[in-house]
Amino acid sequence: MPVSARGRVVLGGQDHGPGMVASRAMDAYRAIVDKRDQRAFLPRPLAEETLRCILTAGRMTGSSKNREPNRLVVVRDRPRLTALGGLSRFGRWMADAAVAVVIVQTERHEFDAGRCAQNMMLAGWAEGVGSCPAHFPEAEVARLLGIPADLEINRVIGFGYIDPARAAPPASVARPRRPLDELVHWDVW
Amino acid sequence: MPVSARGRVVLGGQDHGPGMVASRAMDAYRAIVDKRDQRAFLPRPLAEETLRCILTAGRMTGSSKNREPNRLVVVRDRPRLTALGGLSRFGRWMADAAVAVVIVQTERHEFDAGRCAQNMMLAGWAEGVGSCPAHFPEAEVARLLGIPADLEINRVIGFGYIDPARAAPPASVARPRRPLDELVHWDVW
Repeated sequence: MPVSARGRVVLGGQDHGPGMVASRAMDAYRAIVDKRDQRAFLPRPLAEETLRCILTAGRMTGSSKNREPNRLVVVRDRPRLTALGGLSRFGRWMADAAVAVVIVQTERHEFDAGRCAQNMMLAGWAEGVGSCPAHFPEAEVARLLGIPADLEINRVIGFGYIDPARAAPPASVARPRRPLDELVHWDVW
Repeated sequence: MPVSARGRVVLGGQDHGPGMVASRAMDAYRAIVDKRDQRAFLPRPLAEETLRCILTAGRMTGSSKNREPNRLVVVRDRPRLTALGGLSRFGRWMADAAVAVVIVQTERHEFDAGRCAQNMMLAGWAEGVGSCPAHFPEAEVARLLGIPADLEINRVIGFGYIDPARAAPPASVARPRRPLDELVHWDVW
């Protein structure tokens, strides 16, 4: 069985290029249903391999007509993260993220941004990395990060290792998800 | 170790209610990076447990301000699937899906629909179920499925067991994804 440079077993599947070792940290279904959006992180940088998994998850995301509209600005520089956190009252927590990934689009496509964001957040979650997407004022993000005016700034996603002491959601959003029976209609509405 | 009704080992994690056994078919990272959109399926109904995993993946998806805008119309009735496939020149393949899940929203939020779609498609992929999202004319979908006019119809996602003989993408979209180096910008654009 092939083994990656870090001693992990590499499962079968397609080869997506160098550095893309498979992680076996978590079963797919568990990652999907357990993932909760997190805004509180440990003050610890992400492992390079984990960040690469997250970005590769973004890269491999399917897109409408295979147009691949998403580009990623990966912010690790602390002064820039602090500046980002200062751009929005509801986004202050971004200042303490280990990494902020800005989804920039060559053409506006919110649905495809959502697919890409979910893939990146799940890949992080499977490695103990929490995340949450946030809106920031687009013109100010563009200025801070030098993003050309002809591109669309979609979301900023903050990533960082989950802080177990602060992982529970605030009481205001801690209610369980709506039950399946209320959510699902069979064959007709 | 707890074992599900179907003899599978249930991994640790939160309890999301009855019927939500964890699947151990695939590692999270592999599911995320290997998933390709599929429009050709085997003529076989989905296992009930697999469909429930897919719908639960949709249910557990995070949403902006935790507003949970997504509702799901699950179409298995063959005449309705055939009628759906007749609504769009590019969506004819939907007629041969085992299940079509229509994402209906209580308020328009394309990004949250994308997150939900990706979660459902990954949960399916981990079980050998292919999928692809598609746009259909909204008024006609509403009429066909009795969806009230005050709701937003976002996407229809077709699901079915992958047909290995028809799993390769058509030549027109078979190019590899854009490489990470072209996609990612570090700290600034």
